[in-house]
Amino acid sequence: MAEANQREAIDLGEKFGLFSDQWSPRIIAGLNDLHVKIAKIEGEFVWHSHAETDEFFLVHKGSFVMEYRDRSVTLKAGDVHIVPRGVEHRPVAAAECEIVMIEPAGTLNTGDAGGDRTVEAPPWI
Amino acid sequence: MAEANQREAIDLGEKFGLFSDQWSPRIIAGLNDLHVKIAKIEGEFVWHSHAETDEFFLVHKGSFVMEYRDRSVTLKAGDVHIVPRGVEHRPVAAAECEIVMIEPAGTLNTGDAGGDRTVEAPPWI
Repeated sequence: MAEANQREAIDLGEKFGLFSDQWSPRIIAGLNDLHVKIAKIEGEFVWHSHAETDEFFLVHKGSFVMEYRDRSVTLKAGDVHIVPRGVEHRPVAAAECEIVMIEPAGTLNTGDAGGDRTVEAPPWI
Repeated sequence: MAEANQREAIDLGEKFGLFSDQWSPRIIAGLNDLHVKIAKIEGEFVWHSHAETDEFFLVHKGSFVMEYRDRSVTLKAGDVHIVPRGVEHRPVAAAECEIVMIEPAGTLNTGDAGGDRTVEAPPWI
């Protein structure tokens, strides 16, 4: 599936319209060994980190706060954000927010934390 | 500079407001070994390909056409597009268009084609 959706126009708005469940990422594209994922988030996620990789975030719609242990960064539609590898973080959204993420294929949403909010293999959409 | 802008809110609209020259990419973030770049484009670019890497495109404002030898894909604001490695392509924009690109650091804008439109080392912004 690595080449799924290549050379297509991938309409983010259309893709977000295809599902409604929150904290459940979908893969929309492959970029070398990375996956481009989208998700709808609302409320607090779990504290976690990714030892091996940075994470790319882009807010498509709405806003959320990326909490770190020493600071919080408010992100609104049209903002890009990079979470450095190995740094604990927790996304918190007061209202539903649509986000785009890019990270290596196989990166778990809960990183080193595990638990029942882990999505082992997000589906393509 | 790989960690520049990490843990910041990188406002795409604000970054695009900082320059006006076309076909001259700026780096706004590092994601592992990749760079997140932005550019303003208008008119035709040169045909080229990148043997070693796929390329990620996101249209921030406006629209453009990604031409391939066998097809053309129209991309508008909010569309993501992946150019597969090794495939000849040429972006063409009828009016100025703002785009976000993600590709390995050091990837040349003109790929294997070279020439006077090559930007060897885009600046950070």
